[in-house]
Amino acid sequence: MHPVTARPKTGLKPGKILFLTAHDKYMPAWSSSWQLPDQIADVLPSEARHIEELRRLFLDTARSYGYELVMPPLLEHLESLLTGTGEALDLQTFKLVDQLSGRTLGLRADTTPQVARIDAHLLNRQGVARLCYCGPVLHTRADRPHATREPLQFGAEIYGHAGLEADLEAQLLALEGLSTAGVTQLSVDMADVRIVSSLLAGARISPSMLARIHAALAAKDASELASLMASLNGELPSAARQGLLMLLQMYGDDKVLAEAEKAFKAVPEALRALQNLKWLATHVQALAGPVRIAFDLADLRGYAYYSGTRFAIYGHGQRDGGQGAELVRGGRYDEVGAVFGRNRPAAGFSLDLKELVSVLLPKPLRPAIRAPWGEDAGLRAAIAKLRAGGDTVACVLPGHEHEVDEFDCDRELVSLAGQWQVRQLAKTPA
Amino acid sequence: MHPVTARPKTGLKPGKILFLTAHDKYMPAWSSSWQLPDQIADVLPSEARHIEELRRLFLDTARSYGYELVMPPLLEHLESLLTGTGEALDLQTFKLVDQLSGRTLGLRADTTPQVARIDAHLLNRQGVARLCYCGPVLHTRADRPHATREPLQFGAEIYGHAGLEADLEAQLLALEGLSTAGVTQLSVDMADVRIVSSLLAGARISPSMLARIHAALAAKDASELASLMASLNGELPSAARQGLLMLLQMYGDDKVLAEAEKAFKAVPEALRALQNLKWLATHVQALAGPVRIAFDLADLRGYAYYSGTRFAIYGHGQRDGGQGAELVRGGRYDEVGAVFGRNRPAAGFSLDLKELVSVLLPKPLRPAIRAPWGEDAGLRAAIAKLRAGGDTVACVLPGHEHEVDEFDCDRELVSLAGQWQVRQLAKTPA
Repeated sequence: MHPVTARPKTGLKPGKILFLTAHDKYMPAWSSSWQLPDQIADVLPSEARHIEELRRLFLDTARSYGYELVMPPLLEHLESLLTGTGEALDLQTFKLVDQLSGRTLGLRADTTPQVARIDAHLLNRQGVARLCYCGPVLHTRADRPHATREPLQFGAEIYGHAGLEADLEAQLLALEGLSTAGVTQLSVDMADVRIVSSLLAGARISPSMLARIHAALAAKDASELASLMASLNGELPSAARQGLLMLLQMYGDDKVLAEAEKAFKAVPEALRALQNLKWLATHVQALAGPVRIAFDLADLRGYAYYSGTRFAIYGHGQRDGGQGAELVRGGRYDEVGAVFGRNRPAAGFSLDLKELVSVLLPKPLRPAIRAPWGEDAGLRAAIAKLRAGGDTVACVLPGHEHEVDEFDCDRELVSLAGQWQVRQLAKTPA
Repeated sequence: MHPVTARPKTGLKPGKILFLTAHDKYMPAWSSSWQLPDQIADVLPSEARHIEELRRLFLDTARSYGYELVMPPLLEHLESLLTGTGEALDLQTFKLVDQLSGRTLGLRADTTPQVARIDAHLLNRQGVARLCYCGPVLHTRADRPHATREPLQFGAEIYGHAGLEADLEAQLLALEGLSTAGVTQLSVDMADVRIVSSLLAGARISPSMLARIHAALAAKDASELASLMASLNGELPSAARQGLLMLLQMYGDDKVLAEAEKAFKAVPEALRALQNLKWLATHVQALAGPVRIAFDLADLRGYAYYSGTRFAIYGHGQRDGGQGAELVRGGRYDEVGAVFGRNRPAAGFSLDLKELVSVLLPKPLRPAIRAPWGEDAGLRAAIAKLRAGGDTVACVLPGHEHEVDEFDCDRELVSLAGQWQVRQLAKTPA
């Protein structure tokens, strides 16, 4: 029975779309929604195929750069999953009890701390280690209003190199993957958390005040920031208070860097961070093809673990009108392995393949070949040969010869003059 | 600091092996174990790469047969995940609370019920639907003593065809995948749950007695079964009691079928099941290449959802001494979609790619090309070309030229007479 009449009262959340395409003949989108938790969705054939292609694209691109695949588990002891990662990740992590040990486990909400643990404890290489991963993570609450709570996270990380070449390689790898996936009008936003921290260095500021300053910067809330600065008169030198207020205006193209260099010429660590950004921008511009680069020096978003330059990559798919989507986040997080006893330099990025696929147009399916069901050895051999050659051959099971909604087929395997041959199917009249 | 000296008191669980190979230079296996929950493990590079290859092999083979990929979520409302699947799956399912709704969620312990939901509610096709999936499942307790609690489940299902051709296709697809993966000495064990149920049909037997009969059959416990049969004197006809006791001996090659046909000639449903097994065995033998086929008519293992023929495929890898491992389980479970309002015929199978990889020898890695780091456009172009051609090119980051445990490289990119060229690396003396 077709359950369309049973539309539930809970209804469909706005923006909750299942990306249905012509090939999959479905129920309305809400018919799944009422059975699944909010912001959790099935991925149906045409989209699943596209995600699988993107998954391979990123894994193969990373491998071609020398990144080795690792697969950390979905479940870990909570303390191992959360040590040193900050409160935001804790709130995003589902907790449950291990009946074998009675201990609390967490479902990973991010993979980077796990990969740092693998680098620190299991691989324990002295030199550079390049690692990548691709798997689901789960969030108690979604990152953004209409995002999934089960992103499919791909990421790549370089351990053991403190120089900017590692940051550059991470950005180039991410840009190559996105570009090959079909994302256009790529732009990289760069920032460096050390600019803010260098302005606050040496001042005695309470953690709660620090959190308010970070929040005001993140929200670009000039009046809140001004009132915080006024209240810090005495604790924070005037130049630092002026500097933080000026940061709010420092976003845009490379003119921002020149402006900041002038403003922070007395703050050596800020100057070094600006030099880093300039080096990265110049090299990305030269090596990545056409990419727009912008800076946002007040930007402090992302997990608590960034320790140096950070970046976000925006781009346009074929599906998202005028607005570019933030597709990749990454940067340097040298402290991430410290809690596992090995404080190595680390840089990398991650992205959600479900987010990426949602901005790209569905890829057309290569139509299949229809074959009759039969025990004839010649038929079986012909089918096996076509499949080995990369074709999809769907056998029509006995009694289903006249069904229309089988796998989309444009050819059929037929016996002509004693030979099994592929011929075009006549288009069915509309 | 190398934490080898910090060996914890909890120690290493017997049988818990991390499949370390020469390429990954590691800590002893226990150094991860003490951080991770029991029977949960990281998958390190050489094994992860092999699992990824097997994943693609099974997905691509299934696609060549016309199976479409779906990705159900890891988390669902508990009642949707467990309706109609029996108590065993309930006990294996991790539960947690959704803070958005306050409802209880389950982490999937099996994917088949989810795919049945997708077939019933979302695709809702009138004809045959072939679907496949590949993703993690989680178990509160492992299936077997040393198994992982996080299998990576691949599976394929055909909906909408009640005939044996669907069962046959499922077996052939599974056998082709295993054989291509390198599994040898394949053997298929077949059974049919309807033989036992036809002998018990019409008798008034309590659910707890039924459970004890099933357990005695599964354990091949003749004395327990005899005492159960004696206690059923009066409720169950003598022929049925005799038949159930005879089942315990009915395992082995096709002589078993002939024997059973004689024994159950008065039980039409049992005879039909035997005819099905004979048809399937003959066709698998003819179409799958060299496969040993055996029957075990008392076999009732597997989830509660099998409704007809079921099968298990055993095989030898290159790693598991003399004993073949049970690698695939499958069969017919026509009732699986009923709770979702659509009682369609269904047949299929699943396997754990982590179990499969554990019996196969690690695949040697194709060695990479080492390239210097540099901004030279010719160097960058040469690297891009090699990567596009399928090679792995690892750039040696500045200062790391003399590290030995980089990605395994047998060639290097060098500038000779103004041209970037690949040349063999001299083997380093042992």
